[in-house]
Amino acid sequence: MVSFESDYNTGAHPALLKRLAETNLEFLSGYGTDRYCESAKKKILDAVGVPGAEVEFLTGGTQTNAVVISTMLADHEGVIAAKTGHINAHEAGAIEYTGHKVIALPQKDGKLSLDALAGFLEDFYADPSRDHMVFPGMVYISYPTEYGTLYSKRELEALREVCRRYGMKLFIDGARLGYALTSYDCDLTLKELASLCDVFYIGGTKVGALCGEAVVFTQNNRPEFFTTSVKKRGAMLAKGRLVGVQFDALFTDGLFFEISRHAIAMAEKMKELFRSKGIEFFISSPTNQQFVVLENSRLERIAESVVFTPWEKFGPDRTVVRFVTSWSTKDEDLKALEAAL
Amino acid sequence: MVSFESDYNTGAHPALLKRLAETNLEFLSGYGTDRYCESAKKKILDAVGVPGAEVEFLTGGTQTNAVVISTMLADHEGVIAAKTGHINAHEAGAIEYTGHKVIALPQKDGKLSLDALAGFLEDFYADPSRDHMVFPGMVYISYPTEYGTLYSKRELEALREVCRRYGMKLFIDGARLGYALTSYDCDLTLKELASLCDVFYIGGTKVGALCGEAVVFTQNNRPEFFTTSVKKRGAMLAKGRLVGVQFDALFTDGLFFEISRHAIAMAEKMKELFRSKGIEFFISSPTNQQFVVLENSRLERIAESVVFTPWEKFGPDRTVVRFVTSWSTKDEDLKALEAAL
Amino acid sequence: MVSFESDYNTGAHPALLKRLAETNLEFLSGYGTDRYCESAKKKILDAVGVPGAEVEFLTGGTQTNAVVISTMLADHEGVIAAKTGHINAHEAGAIEYTGHKVIALPQKDGKLSLDALAGFLEDFYADPSRDHMVFPGMVYISYPTEYGTLYSKRELEALREVCRRYGMKLFIDGARLGYALTSYDCDLTLKELASLCDVFYIGGTKVGALCGEAVVFTQNNRPEFFTTSVKKRGAMLAKGRLVGVQFDALFTDGLFFEISRHAIAMAEKMKELFRSKGIEFFISSPTNQQFVVLENSRLERIAESVVFTPWEKFGPDRTVVRFVTSWSTKDEDLKALEAAL
Amino acid sequence: MVSFESDYNTGAHPALLKRLAETNLEFLSGYGTDRYCESAKKKILDAVGVPGAEVEFLTGGTQTNAVVISTMLADHEGVIAAKTGHINAHEAGAIEYTGHKVIALPQKDGKLSLDALAGFLEDFYADPSRDHMVFPGMVYISYPTEYGTLYSKRELEALREVCRRYGMKLFIDGARLGYALTSYDCDLTLKELASLCDVFYIGGTKVGALCGEAVVFTQNNRPEFFTTSVKKRGAMLAKGRLVGVQFDALFTDGLFFEISRHAIAMAEKMKELFRSKGIEFFISSPTNQQFVVLENSRLERIAESVVFTPWEKFGPDRTVVRFVTSWSTKDEDLKALEAAL
Repeated sequence: MVSFESDYNTGAHPALLKRLAETNLEFLSGYGTDRYCESAKKKILDAVGVPGAEVEFLTGGTQTNAVVISTMLADHEGVIAAKTGHINAHEAGAIEYTGHKVIALPQKDGKLSLDALAGFLEDFYADPSRDHMVFPGMVYISYPTEYGTLYSKRELEALREVCRRYGMKLFIDGARLGYALTSYDCDLTLKELASLCDVFYIGGTKVGALCGEAVVFTQNNRPEFFTTSVKKRGAMLAKGRLVGVQFDALFTDGLFFEISRHAIAMAEKMKELFRSKGIEFFISSPTNQQFVVLENSRLERIAESVVFTPWEKFGPDRTVVRFVTSWSTKDEDLKALEAAL
Repeated sequence: MVSFESDYNTGAHPALLKRLAETNLEFLSGYGTDRYCESAKKKILDAVGVPGAEVEFLTGGTQTNAVVISTMLADHEGVIAAKTGHINAHEAGAIEYTGHKVIALPQKDGKLSLDALAGFLEDFYADPSRDHMVFPGMVYISYPTEYGTLYSKRELEALREVCRRYGMKLFIDGARLGYALTSYDCDLTLKELASLCDVFYIGGTKVGALCGEAVVFTQNNRPEFFTTSVKKRGAMLAKGRLVGVQFDALFTDGLFFEISRHAIAMAEKMKELFRSKGIEFFISSPTNQQFVVLENSRLERIAESVVFTPWEKFGPDRTVVRFVTSWSTKDEDLKALEAAL
Repeated sequence: MVSFESDYNTGAHPALLKRLAETNLEFLSGYGTDRYCESAKKKILDAVGVPGAEVEFLTGGTQTNAVVISTMLADHEGVIAAKTGHINAHEAGAIEYTGHKVIALPQKDGKLSLDALAGFLEDFYADPSRDHMVFPGMVYISYPTEYGTLYSKRELEALREVCRRYGMKLFIDGARLGYALTSYDCDLTLKELASLCDVFYIGGTKVGALCGEAVVFTQNNRPEFFTTSVKKRGAMLAKGRLVGVQFDALFTDGLFFEISRHAIAMAEKMKELFRSKGIEFFISSPTNQQFVVLENSRLERIAESVVFTPWEKFGPDRTVVRFVTSWSTKDEDLKALEAAL
Repeated sequence: MVSFESDYNTGAHPALLKRLAETNLEFLSGYGTDRYCESAKKKILDAVGVPGAEVEFLTGGTQTNAVVISTMLADHEGVIAAKTGHINAHEAGAIEYTGHKVIALPQKDGKLSLDALAGFLEDFYADPSRDHMVFPGMVYISYPTEYGTLYSKRELEALREVCRRYGMKLFIDGARLGYALTSYDCDLTLKELASLCDVFYIGGTKVGALCGEAVVFTQNNRPEFFTTSVKKRGAMLAKGRLVGVQFDALFTDGLFFEISRHAIAMAEKMKELFRSKGIEFFISSPTNQQFVVLENSRLERIAESVVFTPWEKFGPDRTVVRFVTSWSTKDEDLKALEAAL
């Protein structure tokens, strides 16, 4: 059975597995202090190209969000997110578990509404009782969003400006960052992205690694004693090499971008296929997650030979479903999908 | 340079890497719901042999301790540990981060003192103001301990009985469990161990895996909605297969025990080597961690060609140091050590 | 200067102060174990009239919300509230500080929308990925609401039924409960209210006490070891008598209801006054909080001699403001207001 | 029945009650922003006499400890306390509830051992793995201690110097501070105390108030947005006047010191009484808590007419018991005790 269920349904890109095998018996110190972590950090910093940036590795997305947010917020602060933002909707309250509120604001196509944000902030700072409220200390956005959409460079600059004006940090969840940066619709570079935010991460888990996310603090702003805070949150890997070796491979010879580009190309073919079959798009997504609307009867038929994710009801007889491509999607997978449609 | 620094200084046992490669391109569902996780759980349950047991996978030791303890304690409870217990000494306050106190009691050779425990409990329940105190809800021990020592079956039975009498759970941290069960000095089986506690875990990270710990709830006592609690703590792996495939391999044809046994055999040879060189043991350890006392000058000389861990000062001129063997220790490593000594 | 700023702007009802003075030098044991706490609990239980109910005293509203919610929710659960609910809007993230999410849903006039609630729950339980989400474990409402409005008996019964169907607890924040129960528009009794929820509290701070809230668990459902959980949250008063004596007085000879009724009568007179002056109501409130719309110029003039609270902007030239009556509002206060208007 | 059970067994000093009554019907703004809070803060600052000091009011001791410690520690830090320190022994894990470890060190007569502290710190900073451990960020002491004993000025200076050297804050729990400063054995003034620590509090609850503690940040070091942090912890009193009026009275005309002095004089008489009856002291305490050793048969006899607290067993036939004087202890109470002895 072929699967478009998600971009974490296969293992690692073979080049990563190969490097894990080649380095497997080397004696390396633990907890991310090994030479592969160091090399990977250097390569990532080269790709990011922002002076004063620092890299730290963590294992997964929810963990990264919780660690970054809780170590960068002050006690009286919470984090703003789109209502559909992953930290608000699909992380089982991991941010609240750290004692901080997620302030959920309206969104459009998965993107935080700039108007809603501006209105919220204006009201907040006009309220004389704001000492009794959670202060907005950070804006969280995902890029691409949970609906596969992208903020334009101009939109990011506007967000950045709002954050600057109100003394908030801007944090970009890049669990699928590779699929954003290589989208035909993306109008910014990794370096530009880095210079527009305070902290972001480059997702490995969904872009070819077995696990691992690379957090980039963009301006000498890594929280002090970050290692201890990571350990305190149960987020430290004893064999840090597992993530270091993989990111070292991902950022060698542009592999990360190459495999991201492949997923985007596959997504474009898939979109073409949907179009040719007269299937309606729920949302216009330029990245590797595609949301379409299926008649329920058709949905069931397709589900016999293809794995995908029902997303939400769409009236009585139809359903929004998600199809995802990844670095490992093959032409024959698309053929199988075509057959199923 | 040869290393006895720890048992997590090499990658994975080759058989595990091989299985990761073989299954790499299979489409598998995420979050530990794949067939390899299922198969691994079944094999572990077979090895454990206790009806009503359930298995859950997590990534690392500190994470596992925090998740297990915080999901099994009631609000008013804390966890008792030896002063030297990992959760008290070396986890950066990960348990306290979950809102629960670690009640540290005296130890001997890394083992929680049964007398101290009994005395503490007697005093606690005699104290009319105990509603203002943290209730002891669980006893945590590590097996083997942080000093490589083992509780005897009789000692565990006594602990178990104290726990039963005072309504406390018994939790065994088995980060190095393989090296305990295969020690010449171990007088119990995995099944007996399981029947003596409420929950324990089988460490993978230190016994041949890249990462991964298998928690065993021994009596239909897995916390309800455990998956959500794991997610909430940022402890869920998207590609659960990474741990599932590895544990499936570890518990196929007794590999877990075989490689543990190898580490113990190497440790015995190392002990013989120390003895033959007149090196003093700091503690008598029957497992893969050995603690010896070195003159500081000798320590420095050895450190030129061998990696090991200085543990603590021992008077003005000597130091306690730790040497650790593992599944990957080779005879030539011992030869190199002999040369260095 | 006369004040309608809030219902906590004067001290205690004189009868309470008198009892504090009369009992002042009696030796009483601490932490709420004294005879006045006991007597007060008994009198409250008599007034509540629900078998199996239990009473506990706390100091203030936010504290009570945090203690009740965090001791009654399971680890994987969050609490549903109207977006305007006090726990969501004005408690500085006190619930999130306990590690639980506030799930904010749409409201109308301060009341949680039953439709929004039903829709949310249907979607939640239809979502196959709900294990990655915060489970709704409790519904929080305030009665009266933050806008002075009341749920009807029928609305509460409907909420109760939804809670029952989905296994959620219903918690009623009664910081101003007295002003609800004595409103001309209230169609239920204290006993009916108690039988419609799992837990509620009777606010003392805003109804004549210096401090103190009486939590009523309605059906033998007080969390086990509640005393220890209260202490753990820094919410235990050493001189529990302070709250016990006051509630004992409040529930002697119906004082609590008598002074609440007075505030409502004053509010009705105030409404009449507003009407007679052609002042527009922002919302129709049958309790002691009144929200009206003032021209900004008029607002400033009134503010010279009367204290009240600007609530939110209402277009460019007008403002919503709040006027509050209480047990201590006097006819001459209304006269002063009339003069100012 | 006469009581020496504790110093919170009677209500408020009559002068405080009187002021509460006199100010009762004044309209005052809430949350500690009223003129009595302001006046009380000014008087306390005058008494403290340290430039740059700031005062904040809270309600009770455990709450104050939790709020101060959790707002002053960094994420990676814990707080050091004597094993017998209140935060370690009798606060139900309130500090751990805020996510921070209490590092318990050996004590003598309730006082943190300076040698143990120095040794701990030396070991900690010599340990290359300290990033995996809780950093000591603060030293907590109680003055007087839980056993009624006092640190000498020299001892406090030594503690201060250790804190300075290791970058730790020094926090003094002064729940019974009045009874320390007026002890015949006290060799420092309030001003000297303030200049020797980073933060301390002046207990009201145990020195004549119904409730209330005054936290003094000694050097412009009040945590930013402290009000919001207090609210977030459920520790804010709506009617802040309750504490403000009381402290204003306590620090008018030296009442606080006068009533403390009275308790000490009573304690001295009580000690004389014990001596005259040949009763053995468990510890030599110069403050208002006295610990003596009683035969169990005698204990039972005395308990028929006097309330006091059994503390701990002392061999098979004897018990350590605590007798406490306070501002409200009267000569006839001592007579009744004499009769009972």
